Amino acid sequence: MVKRNALYAQSGGVTAVINASACGVIETARRHRRRIGTVFAGRNGIIGALREELIDTGKESAASISALKRTPSGAFGSCRHKLKPLDSDPREYERLLAVFKAHDIGYFFYNGGGDSQDTANKIAEFTARADYPVTCIGIPKTVDNDLPFTDTCPGFGSVAKYVAVSIREAALDVASMCESSTKVFILEVMGRHAGWIAAAAGLARSVPGGPPHLIVFPEVAFDRAAFLAKVDATVKRAGYCVVVVSEGAQYADGTFLAEAGTRDAFGHAQLGGVAPTVAELVKRELGHKYHWAVADYLQRAARHIASATDVEQAYAVGRAAVEFALAGKNAVMPIIVRKRAKPYRWEIGEVPLAKVANVEKKMPKSFISQDGFGITARARAYLEPLIAGEDYPRYRGGLPEYVTLKRQLVRKRLPDYPI
Amino acid sequence: MVKRNALYAQSGGVTAVINASACGVIETARRHRRRIGTVFAGRNGIIGALREELIDTGKESAASISALKRTPSGAFGSCRHKLKPLDSDPREYERLLAVFKAHDIGYFFYNGGGDSQDTANKIAEFTARADYPVTCIGIPKTVDNDLPFTDTCPGFGSVAKYVAVSIREAALDVASMCESSTKVFILEVMGRHAGWIAAAAGLARSVPGGPPHLIVFPEVAFDRAAFLAKVDATVKRAGYCVVVVSEGAQYADGTFLAEAGTRDAFGHAQLGGVAPTVAELVKRELGHKYHWAVADYLQRAARHIASATDVEQAYAVGRAAVEFALAGKNAVMPIIVRKRAKPYRWEIGEVPLAKVANVEKKMPKSFISQDGFGITARARAYLEPLIAGEDYPRYRGGLPEYVTLKRQLVRKRLPDYPI
Repeated sequence: MVKRNALYAQSGGVTAVINASACGVIETARRHRRRIGTVFAGRNGIIGALREELIDTGKESAASISALKRTPSGAFGSCRHKLKPLDSDPREYERLLAVFKAHDIGYFFYNGGGDSQDTANKIAEFTARADYPVTCIGIPKTVDNDLPFTDTCPGFGSVAKYVAVSIREAALDVASMCESSTKVFILEVMGRHAGWIAAAAGLARSVPGGPPHLIVFPEVAFDRAAFLAKVDATVKRAGYCVVVVSEGAQYADGTFLAEAGTRDAFGHAQLGGVAPTVAELVKRELGHKYHWAVADYLQRAARHIASATDVEQAYAVGRAAVEFALAGKNAVMPIIVRKRAKPYRWEIGEVPLAKVANVEKKMPKSFISQDGFGITARARAYLEPLIAGEDYPRYRGGLPEYVTLKRQLVRKRLPDYPI
Repeated sequence: MVKRNALYAQSGGVTAVINASACGVIETARRHRRRIGTVFAGRNGIIGALREELIDTGKESAASISALKRTPSGAFGSCRHKLKPLDSDPREYERLLAVFKAHDIGYFFYNGGGDSQDTANKIAEFTARADYPVTCIGIPKTVDNDLPFTDTCPGFGSVAKYVAVSIREAALDVASMCESSTKVFILEVMGRHAGWIAAAAGLARSVPGGPPHLIVFPEVAFDRAAFLAKVDATVKRAGYCVVVVSEGAQYADGTFLAEAGTRDAFGHAQLGGVAPTVAELVKRELGHKYHWAVADYLQRAARHIASATDVEQAYAVGRAAVEFALAGKNAVMPIIVRKRAKPYRWEIGEVPLAKVANVEKKMPKSFISQDGFGITARARAYLEPLIAGEDYPRYRGGLPEYVTLKRQLVRKRLPDYPI
C-alpha cells in the first residue's frame, strides 16, 4: 500500500461541531500512519489550498486534536470561496492539482454543505482525468440542514438545541413579567432558505398552547393579518406571546420581511433584522409592548450547549470519511441513516457526491401546522432526537476552554497564486 | 414564640437565579414551622399583594420548591410596580397593611433591586407606626449589579457568565471566517445605566489583544472617531474585530446611541438596538462587512449556563433573609461580603435597608482601561470569581426541565382593590 498525504478543508459557515469532524478525520488518520502520512489542513479552507497555505496538523499534540471535539467554529479557518466553473475556467482546478502533486496529497476531505460536495466531486473527476487520481470524500456540515439523503447535517442539531433552550428560557422570562411589562417577545433565528432552525424552536413547547406561540417560516408566505390576529389572540388568552421568526421570512412575492421598505434617516436601507421589523409591526398595529432578540452567530457557535447527538455524529462522519478513503471508496459522502425513530438509532451510510451536488433538502410541508405558525407531531418526532444529550466543554475560571491550534504552515514549494 | 405567616414577593426584571432565592426563603421557612406558618407569594409581585392574590406555596411539593433553584425567571411572577409615595398617597401602604392583617402576615421578604429595598423599608416603618409591626427583610436581586454594600447582586454573575461565554464563542466564529467574510461583529448587552454586564464580556479575552477587542460602556462618552479608528486598526492587525456594546452607550450629551436620530421609512423612531446602529456606522465609515446580535432576554434568562457561584449566593441570601427575620432583625438586607479575593471566599453580611435605598453602585473608573474600550486587571479580579462554576439544570429530551408551580391562590378575605 502506498502512503499518501491528506488534505482536509473546512468550507462555508462554521458550526459548533465542525471541529469535531476535523477531530474525527485527524484522529482516524493517525491510527493509519502506514497509509496516511501527514494530514494537511487548508488555512481558511479551499483558499489555503489554492494559496498553498497548508497547516501541518502533525505539529498539533494529541491533546489539542482531541480538544477540537469540544471547540466550536473552524479551527483551521473557513471561507465561502466557490471554485470557478471547471468548463470555462479550469485554472483553480489545475492549481489544486499542482498543490496536491507538490505535497503528495492523495486524499482530499472536504467538510461543507452542498456546494462543497459538488466541488469535491469535480476535483475527483478532474484529478482522475489528469491521471493523478485523488480520493475525494465529502463530509457533511451545515446548520441549514439542507443536504439530501442524510438524516441530518452535523451542526444543525446544536443550533436546534440552542434555539429551543433559549426560547424556553426567554418565554419564562416574558411570562413572569407580562402582567405589567413586555407582552410580545420576538426571537430571530437563522435560516434564509428553510425553516429547519425555526422549527426546532417549536420543541420548546411543553404544554399545548404554550410558548413559542408562533413560528414564522420562510416556507409560508407571511400573512400580516393572520399573524397579527394570532398574536393578539394569544396575548388575550395567555397574557403574552412568544414569536420565533426565521431570518428568511418573506411575503408572498418573495420580498424578505427584513428588507420590506424600511430606511433610516439617512435613506439607507434598514439594517436587517426581521425581529425588529416584526416587533415594530406588532407595536404599530396592536400597541403591545415588545422586546426582541437576534441570536445571529451566537446560535451557531454555541458549543457550550451543543447537542451530544450532534457532536457524536459530527465526529462519526469525519472518522467515516477516512475509513471510506482507506477502503478505496471515492467521490462519496458519509451520511447519517436513521435506523429507528424511538429510541433513536442511527448508523453511517454513504451516498455518491454526484447525487448530493446541487440538491437541496426542503422541509416537508407536513412539518408545518395547518395555520402555518407551528410544527406538527411529525416535525417533533424528527427533531427531538437531534437535540438529545448534553456534551459540555471543559471550563476553567468560569469559561469554556477552547483550544487554539499552532496552525504551523508547511514550506511552500510552488510559486504564489494570487486569489 | 408566636407563629406568623410570611409573604414573599419578586420585584422588577427577573433573572436566571431569582427563583433560587425563593427556594432559599421557602426551604428555610419550612424548617421553622413552629415560627413561620404559611409562606405566601405575591402573584406577579407586589401587584399580587395589593390585589390580595396570594399564592399558597405550602401547596407546592418539596421537589417543586427544590427545582426552583434550577429554574430561571420569576416562578410567582414579577412586576415593575413602584408604590406611590407614602407621604402624599398612603393608600397602597394601607392596603398592604390590611392584606397583612387579613392573612396574619408577620414577615415580608421583598426580592428586588434598589427601589424594592426602599419600599420594604417604608413598609417596615409604616406597619410599625400602625402598631402592626411586620418584619421586612430585603433580598438583593438585579442583573444590573448596582446595589451598594453587597459584593455583587444575585443575577449578575449568571448574565456575566452568559455574556462572556457567548462572546468567546462568537469571536471564534468570526475569526475563522474573517479572511473572506464578516470582519466586524457587534454584540449588544444589557445595562442601561452601568457597564457591569458589558465589562463582564471582557473576561472572554484569553490573550492580550484578543477578542473582545472593544467594549462600549455607558460610563464613557462615545467618541465616534476613536471608536472607528480602533475598529479599523483591529481589523488591519487581527483580520477581524469583535465589539461588545452596552444598550446604555451614549454620546457626551447623554443621547443614547440607539436613539440617535434614525427613523424608518414611516418616520417612526428606529426600533432600538445599539448593535445595528453601531454596525451601520462601521459599514458606512469603514466599509467592513458586519454581523450583529442582540441578546436581550436571552442573557438574563440563561439558566442553562448560570454561574454556580451566583446560584449559591442567590440561595444564600434567601435563606439568610429568613434567618435574619427569625433572629428578630428588621429592615435589613443580607449582602455578599468578599472575605478574600483569590481564592474567592465570601460570607453573608447585612446592611440596614435605610442605607441601601436609593444608592446606586457605579462601576469604578479604575475598572475601565485608559482608552475607554476595555477592562483593567482590577475589573477582571473583581469579576472573575462571580462567573466561577457551572450549575447545570436537569435535562429531559434534550431540554432543561424547568418547574412550573401550581400557584394556587388563597381565598380572598378583603374587598377588591383595583390597580
